[in-house]
Amino acid sequence: MSDQIEEVSEPDEAQWGLWGKRDDMIVHESDPYNAEPTRAVLAESPITPIQAFYNRNHGPIPDIDPASYRLQVDGLVERPLELSLEDLQQNFPTREIVATLQCAGNRRAGLVEVRDIPGEDPWGPGAISTARWTGVSLADVLSAAGLRPEAAHVAFEAPDVSELAHPAQRFGGSVTTRKAIAGEVLLAWAMNDEPLPRVHGAPVRIVVPGYIGARSVKWVDRITAQTDPSNNYFQATAYRLLLPESDPRDAGPEEGFALGAVAVTSDIFRPDNHATVLAGPVTVEGYAFAGDDRGIARVDVSADGGNWVRADLGEPLGPWAWRLWRTVIDLRPGEVEIVVRAWDSAAASQPERAEHLWNPKGYANNSWARINVTVSAL
Amino acid sequence: MSDQIEEVSEPDEAQWGLWGKRDDMIVHESDPYNAEPTRAVLAESPITPIQAFYNRNHGPIPDIDPASYRLQVDGLVERPLELSLEDLQQNFPTREIVATLQCAGNRRAGLVEVRDIPGEDPWGPGAISTARWTGVSLADVLSAAGLRPEAAHVAFEAPDVSELAHPAQRFGGSVTTRKAIAGEVLLAWAMNDEPLPRVHGAPVRIVVPGYIGARSVKWVDRITAQTDPSNNYFQATAYRLLLPESDPRDAGPEEGFALGAVAVTSDIFRPDNHATVLAGPVTVEGYAFAGDDRGIARVDVSADGGNWVRADLGEPLGPWAWRLWRTVIDLRPGEVEIVVRAWDSAAASQPERAEHLWNPKGYANNSWARINVTVSAL
Repeated sequence: MSDQIEEVSEPDEAQWGLWGKRDDMIVHESDPYNAEPTRAVLAESPITPIQAFYNRNHGPIPDIDPASYRLQVDGLVERPLELSLEDLQQNFPTREIVATLQCAGNRRAGLVEVRDIPGEDPWGPGAISTARWTGVSLADVLSAAGLRPEAAHVAFEAPDVSELAHPAQRFGGSVTTRKAIAGEVLLAWAMNDEPLPRVHGAPVRIVVPGYIGARSVKWVDRITAQTDPSNNYFQATAYRLLLPESDPRDAGPEEGFALGAVAVTSDIFRPDNHATVLAGPVTVEGYAFAGDDRGIARVDVSADGGNWVRADLGEPLGPWAWRLWRTVIDLRPGEVEIVVRAWDSAAASQPERAEHLWNPKGYANNSWARINVTVSAL
Repeated sequence: MSDQIEEVSEPDEAQWGLWGKRDDMIVHESDPYNAEPTRAVLAESPITPIQAFYNRNHGPIPDIDPASYRLQVDGLVERPLELSLEDLQQNFPTREIVATLQCAGNRRAGLVEVRDIPGEDPWGPGAISTARWTGVSLADVLSAAGLRPEAAHVAFEAPDVSELAHPAQRFGGSVTTRKAIAGEVLLAWAMNDEPLPRVHGAPVRIVVPGYIGARSVKWVDRITAQTDPSNNYFQATAYRLLLPESDPRDAGPEEGFALGAVAVTSDIFRPDNHATVLAGPVTVEGYAFAGDDRGIARVDVSADGGNWVRADLGEPLGPWAWRLWRTVIDLRPGEVEIVVRAWDSAAASQPERAEHLWNPKGYANNSWARINVTVSAL
């Protein structure tokens, strides 16, 4: 088989690194722990194993006793609630959703190539992963609390204190009430049928399918219904798409907007960037993902700078998950750029060039994904 | 004022053409009537006057007696309903929504420039308009009928018979139940506080905010809850984004996907394309629009092939309406291309070039909008 697959190094016995993760994770920071899996590892299965699931943290990882855990539900509600893990598990219907989470900084490396982004990790294409989440619907919990009609936003807060804010602040964020009550937003205590690991938010985290990962607040201990978006640093200051000319240290509110739903994106798992592959038919595979409740409708791949091949889409995992894709392209010897672009169900496709998307915090790079491979003669 | 505004010809007394529309409408077909307003007319107000609102038809315009009008609600419902106009008006809460409708073929002319699209009207940037719609929420009507849990789609049908289908067929389409019950989908009987004109669907039409205009079925007389999307020609065959290499006459289901939500787009009202303007500060203005419940977060304008000016955004008209924008750019004598691109609240921006979006039916051109102007010396 004149393919590159055999060349990918797959450890027979995964070695464990920090926080129970594979030791081949690309660790951008160890404290706070920030790491993504390699392209080859992400390619192994549509549901990402916990040991490979990317991990983005803004402060020290809390260690919460499940027995003493309490969730406050307050603000613009008729009946403020204080719920234990057992209350959540016994008083509301259990839901299971396969959802992809993607960091707003996924594929930032493509923006850094355009212009440096100091102080931000150069995430590759692996700040995205997919899990089966088990928990209760936030809609059901808010319904029990009785949302008041003037509640337009629902804010989340957690005990991980981040020094990125000045002064240091608990992590938080918010979504609109429309999203919060849409049903798919979970208070999850399990991931791939295992209890949520500490590093992924044990005992309970928020999962906001279709939105940037920062809204899926881990270790959540407070949910507040309110008239306005959260004024937490990670909603009001960070995770905003600023103007290219903005200074992130003192950008005014008119210089950007808070991120939320994820725009259609895609990237390549195999071949690896800068890999050498044998000439002939080469399998090219990867992921595509679109936020809101949009699906992936089409994925195009080109290896000759203009002619597009339609990739085969893998089985859909549901409305909240990425779509894996694969195709075989005949490559001739030489240096080849392989490009992919996806289309979502709203006929939105990806912008062509990262240079048009550069922004000072390096978020939301959804330009066509490109890798370079060396094709060697047989 | 060295601006182009005085040069726009504005009739003091609008002349009336077909179907009560302005006689300066750009009429692509008179039977069935298909017409769009000019850029200059669209620029006049955030809410488009009925006389200027674009109009897309697929067959003869029905003439329905409001007194004998009946709406059937059937399919996967507990209680099939037959509702008169009076039933709708008296039995459900009245809702008012400002919503933009955009034809899937809006800005097709930009695709035709890339490659001919036989048999389809070359709509310019005016197959989009905004009105204040009054009616009842489809969610309330479906709730009265009692949607059964297996209903995943809600189909609409109307008595306008189109010869575009073979054999000729009543017009129809569908949306997902998720969208149908989200609250903003209306059964509307008034437009800009006037009874719906015959050509816009009297006595009752569907308005699906954030979706292609074809789903906002005019003269609707049947609503059916069902497990699958409508198999009506205008859902199952037309209004699909086909592959560039597909033959629209016999494209298989795997060669495309049905359009629904609208991807972020924008265009320029003033100056007009191919206008001559005086050198110096020139006002550039236009619209930007994004589907689903996404807002417009930013609009960039460039007149020098690379440096972007941030346009001022007009007052928001609500989550379902376009956002008008305006800026002033200093232009020097010569031939100038003015380019605009918008960003929606999911940080999705428009693809750069129409050539990458070409498709056989010419839908969903949301590439950067470009006009050419001649800048003359003072």
